[in-house]
Amino acid sequence: MPQHNPTLNVAMVGNGFIARAHSNAFHQVGHFFDTPFHLHTKVVCGRNPSKLEAFARQWDWEETSLEWESIVGRPDIHIVDIAVPNALHAPIALAAARAEKIIFCEKPMALSAQEAARMAEALGDLPNLVWFNYRRVPAIAFAKQLMDEGRLGQAFHYRSSYFNQSGVDPAKGQTWRYRSTEAGSGAIGDLLSHSLDTAMFLNGDISELSATKHTFIPGREVDDAVQLMAHFANGSIGSFEASRFGVGRRNGNGFEIYGSKGSLAFDLEDMNRLQFFDATEPPSLQGARNLLVTGPDHPYSANFWKPGHLIGYEHTFIATLGDFLEALAKHEAFHPNFQDALHTQKLIEAVESSAASRQWIKL
Amino acid sequence: MPQHNPTLNVAMVGNGFIARAHSNAFHQVGHFFDTPFHLHTKVVCGRNPSKLEAFARQWDWEETSLEWESIVGRPDIHIVDIAVPNALHAPIALAAARAEKIIFCEKPMALSAQEAARMAEALGDLPNLVWFNYRRVPAIAFAKQLMDEGRLGQAFHYRSSYFNQSGVDPAKGQTWRYRSTEAGSGAIGDLLSHSLDTAMFLNGDISELSATKHTFIPGREVDDAVQLMAHFANGSIGSFEASRFGVGRRNGNGFEIYGSKGSLAFDLEDMNRLQFFDATEPPSLQGARNLLVTGPDHPYSANFWKPGHLIGYEHTFIATLGDFLEALAKHEAFHPNFQDALHTQKLIEAVESSAASRQWIKL
Amino acid sequence: MPQHNPTLNVAMVGNGFIARAHSNAFHQVGHFFDTPFHLHTKVVCGRNPSKLEAFARQWDWEETSLEWESIVGRPDIHIVDIAVPNALHAPIALAAARAEKIIFCEKPMALSAQEAARMAEALGDLPNLVWFNYRRVPAIAFAKQLMDEGRLGQAFHYRSSYFNQSGVDPAKGQTWRYRSTEAGSGAIGDLLSHSLDTAMFLNGDISELSATKHTFIPGREVDDAVQLMAHFANGSIGSFEASRFGVGRRNGNGFEIYGSKGSLAFDLEDMNRLQFFDATEPPSLQGARNLLVTGPDHPYSANFWKPGHLIGYEHTFIATLGDFLEALAKHEAFHPNFQDALHTQKLIEAVESSAASRQWIKL
Amino acid sequence: MPQHNPTLNVAMVGNGFIARAHSNAFHQVGHFFDTPFHLHTKVVCGRNPSKLEAFARQWDWEETSLEWESIVGRPDIHIVDIAVPNALHAPIALAAARAEKIIFCEKPMALSAQEAARMAEALGDLPNLVWFNYRRVPAIAFAKQLMDEGRLGQAFHYRSSYFNQSGVDPAKGQTWRYRSTEAGSGAIGDLLSHSLDTAMFLNGDISELSATKHTFIPGREVDDAVQLMAHFANGSIGSFEASRFGVGRRNGNGFEIYGSKGSLAFDLEDMNRLQFFDATEPPSLQGARNLLVTGPDHPYSANFWKPGHLIGYEHTFIATLGDFLEALAKHEAFHPNFQDALHTQKLIEAVESSAASRQWIKL
Repeated sequence: MPQHNPTLNVAMVGNGFIARAHSNAFHQVGHFFDTPFHLHTKVVCGRNPSKLEAFARQWDWEETSLEWESIVGRPDIHIVDIAVPNALHAPIALAAARAEKIIFCEKPMALSAQEAARMAEALGDLPNLVWFNYRRVPAIAFAKQLMDEGRLGQAFHYRSSYFNQSGVDPAKGQTWRYRSTEAGSGAIGDLLSHSLDTAMFLNGDISELSATKHTFIPGREVDDAVQLMAHFANGSIGSFEASRFGVGRRNGNGFEIYGSKGSLAFDLEDMNRLQFFDATEPPSLQGARNLLVTGPDHPYSANFWKPGHLIGYEHTFIATLGDFLEALAKHEAFHPNFQDALHTQKLIEAVESSAASRQWIKL
Repeated sequence: MPQHNPTLNVAMVGNGFIARAHSNAFHQVGHFFDTPFHLHTKVVCGRNPSKLEAFARQWDWEETSLEWESIVGRPDIHIVDIAVPNALHAPIALAAARAEKIIFCEKPMALSAQEAARMAEALGDLPNLVWFNYRRVPAIAFAKQLMDEGRLGQAFHYRSSYFNQSGVDPAKGQTWRYRSTEAGSGAIGDLLSHSLDTAMFLNGDISELSATKHTFIPGREVDDAVQLMAHFANGSIGSFEASRFGVGRRNGNGFEIYGSKGSLAFDLEDMNRLQFFDATEPPSLQGARNLLVTGPDHPYSANFWKPGHLIGYEHTFIATLGDFLEALAKHEAFHPNFQDALHTQKLIEAVESSAASRQWIKL
Repeated sequence: MPQHNPTLNVAMVGNGFIARAHSNAFHQVGHFFDTPFHLHTKVVCGRNPSKLEAFARQWDWEETSLEWESIVGRPDIHIVDIAVPNALHAPIALAAARAEKIIFCEKPMALSAQEAARMAEALGDLPNLVWFNYRRVPAIAFAKQLMDEGRLGQAFHYRSSYFNQSGVDPAKGQTWRYRSTEAGSGAIGDLLSHSLDTAMFLNGDISELSATKHTFIPGREVDDAVQLMAHFANGSIGSFEASRFGVGRRNGNGFEIYGSKGSLAFDLEDMNRLQFFDATEPPSLQGARNLLVTGPDHPYSANFWKPGHLIGYEHTFIATLGDFLEALAKHEAFHPNFQDALHTQKLIEAVESSAASRQWIKL
Repeated sequence: MPQHNPTLNVAMVGNGFIARAHSNAFHQVGHFFDTPFHLHTKVVCGRNPSKLEAFARQWDWEETSLEWESIVGRPDIHIVDIAVPNALHAPIALAAARAEKIIFCEKPMALSAQEAARMAEALGDLPNLVWFNYRRVPAIAFAKQLMDEGRLGQAFHYRSSYFNQSGVDPAKGQTWRYRSTEAGSGAIGDLLSHSLDTAMFLNGDISELSATKHTFIPGREVDDAVQLMAHFANGSIGSFEASRFGVGRRNGNGFEIYGSKGSLAFDLEDMNRLQFFDATEPPSLQGARNLLVTGPDHPYSANFWKPGHLIGYEHTFIATLGDFLEALAKHEAFHPNFQDALHTQKLIEAVESSAASRQWIKL
């Protein structure tokens, strides 16, 4: 079968869990989206040679490399994808920017807002994305659509929680996610950053916040949990909570939005569902509707299977990539990009600052 | 406080679990309904003197009696309430009919359709009710209202199940409910009779059925479980299943109705809820609505508490009685009455007959 | 039927919604609990004569009165029950204390912690209760039992939310609940007070908090919504949110507790349910158990109906009263009493203070 | 990256919806399973040239063909995959068998049990599978494991329902699924065949059944809905219902199993969940556990993502293929194969026969 679309060669730095999700998206995007480009999984970079070889074999990467410095500038590479611990995001992104590549980066974008600003500036007009993949959960994209259509009226409350139980096992504390030099923060960067991106996507800017953070296991360098109260620019008030000590939750990333005309609720552990309460119905018929957001007429339902046929975690990466490639072909802006992620990084910094000073912070 | 309403004296035969629910209704109906009559708990009848005395004290019965024959004809008694094992329904009802009392009777009405027919005939025009109390679950009454409004369109499927786990414990087999001479049947009379009453209330007559029954514990005289397939007069098809071996279910009395314009689902274990799916909405907004049927504008919501404030099992008896007393004052027909229960009894007989002959039965 | 138990005559001040729930409890407690006392609904007090007469007739109060001052000291009254707007709690309680009555009081106890302290002091050893009725939701009482048994291990997170939609309708703003002189506060006293009582009941004292409150409708004297972050004495961290602008929720009073060995979740709109996650099970078998807290072996399951037969809102008042009367007969302490409610009132004051100063407050 | 595994070339007949799911599995199996073979999507066959070309491009098929007869015998083809309307299963399978290919076939296997028997016989020892993919839903595979471990004890009830709303739209009646010569049957072959395969997988053989079928839209050649009552060889009783008129359900393929020690419930619309009730727990702690079957220690959880990260419809095909290839390498039996599907086909024939004769049928 002749391949008429131009090919973009990808260099991915990282071969852990999230690199699997990225690899999958590179292979799958063309099956579910009419992409104007063909992506080729050219070279994957890691530190552990035997693990790297196995990864490359499993995920069909043409080459491997043990040094990211030697690949991000290669002329045959069009896209640099960053899927490594947070501390490495900046150096790789800056190098890739110098080489004028298309740049994809895992979240959180950076260790600090200052670093994030430097990265965003360095990129300039280079096409880029940050993998806040949950915006492309069809149910979340549909929530956005309902908000934009005014179906919730005036927003009153935005409530977010992201609970998993990843921190309870003390042994987990040995991984990079628990070292401040590599991760920057704990639940804040790992979980809350997703929550903040989703909140701003759905409900707009946060104007003021007060936060507290907590480490349950003595000696850990990073936060195990974080809470915050917030005011949004649209007049609604918000609460956020994220924790690695939510025993019983595996990926409990949820939100509720209450407005004058209705409300919404979502939980990533049931990611094909969205609860929609329409307060404009006659009172006796008002009740939260358990929407199965698999079509018809839902975001991405034309891309994946049929109504009633569920999608999973990986499809959020595929949809992110599909939208990016379409925007790239049309020379349109794509979100979330480094500028959006910089915005989130500033919020994270405000959270840290408020937790330290025990004061409200205006943004 | 002067009591201007005429007083009706009640004689209740029975002092078991269901007699508690009846007693409660006699005391409570005046608190929640503007009843045109005052009910007085005059005399309660049982076999075990000490248990009976304790019951009477607990539930404020003025007198006790060890012989139902001596009380049902007393001139100071206006209502005879039958809350005893099934085999006694007919003799008490017939005696009360001869004495021209108002008659209330537990379900199932009788041991056979023939017996039920005799009872119904004997009653003539005497006001009466059979305690198929679940018609007055607000969520079920609201389901009926939605059906009557045509909100489901043409009915396709009626699915009923009533599962509890009462039969699994072999020791339970010593009670009257497991003796055929006293109970008549097992899950059929105990559980399926409720399901059939609800089905006819909501979806109309059954025109044809095929049934099978099963006894899991050898030596038991009555059925532990029953299944049937049915055709309704309205063209829909139905399935029913009732079992005392539904481990994990305590009172799992539910139904689903699918029609051309929508569907409904209910489960007695969450009796304040009704699931309503409206297929006339735009497809992307269709989803089962989780209605909390506590008002506003729901059946009985003006009688009980406020929206969001739940009611329980006992309120179904109170509402049944409240409606009965209103109908009595207005000389209007009340349902379900002995004629309705006779109809259900004929269905039960058809179920038994089909299970024995392994044939479809036309009604 | 002779009544051997001593009779306690009740004088109730108030004839609104909550007075219905109290009246019901006075009548029903003897049906479900082996009470050592007989309660007699002697006199009810209200301001509107015709409404009061109707109320008294509906709920079997022997007498009516238009002036609470003339009844709380009557020698034939044993219990004074306060079911009126918050501003009247103190004067009535103080008068009843002077007359050495048993005193029941609606929540929140007072307009201020100072006032509450005066009330608690005035009562001294007089038997008393404050109607934080939700402690006696069987599911909440069972949650307490599981906590006390150590089934959750070390507590990490306590999350509370109480959302209803009572405030959205601007017309509602005309009732006493929206006037600061009568209500003291809005969502704080009305909703959050319940949440705080439940939290301390289940998870112990709060040592520090930071709060914010919000009024969505300009001109309203009281808060429509409140949020807070908290640290508990047991080392766990907490979040609370209460709002009258939770469109879609009618009585959404819920909590989640996460501990090292498991977690719990509850919502008053499904009050017969408790979700229990046991993290000591093998991982593949861990999942939130949907407990139907109607027995066997659940709190109050011996008092009410059978397993699988639900109870409603009113039963929380009945159980509160049943426990109180038993404690009274045994000369044992009862909780929640005025001292407990004073504690909650101090928390409420800290919430107000923190919301005003925008600072963390130590308790 | 060198590919050390032997390559198997696939010829797929069909380019509709299900062919997309197969194509996806061919590409993805190597990413999630350590497959001993490399699958190559060699040639795809269809009738409509432009649609076929687009399909081949989208799903990376090397060649296209308009005549299945010309490809199934090609020496460079190792696997023939049949993804076309039911009437074509037999001729293609028989031709592929003559050519001694590995054969994959969509369900239902054939138009009749006789035809299915001929196919199974023709295959002999050739490796084969029938795409009853739902056995590999992790939650269903886990249900099987729990059954095999005896965690449900003696089985009492097996209840199955498969409802979608595909038939309500009269226009749908123009597709091959509504023509008896191409489809053989309606809801029976399309939906019930899945239910029967799952039931036998979990609960063993059916020994006797009584069925009825119904067509709601006059003039349709095939059934819109089917119901049956059954006895299983293990002594449990069963009910099955399948319908294309289940308005509100998109892919409502569910089952409940009740046994002496516990129960299970599943619904494909929430396919990552399994409800497990353990009746060996203390009664107060018994409740249906909402298991999120994404690991750890669940079937296929090591293959796909991490605990809490959902999978979707397509993964059932990938897992089926992964297991098949492993069995192929080890020369072990794979299920479900043509023999298993023949067994299901015989049940389907008994269902048709019972529906026609209105009699119970022994198997």
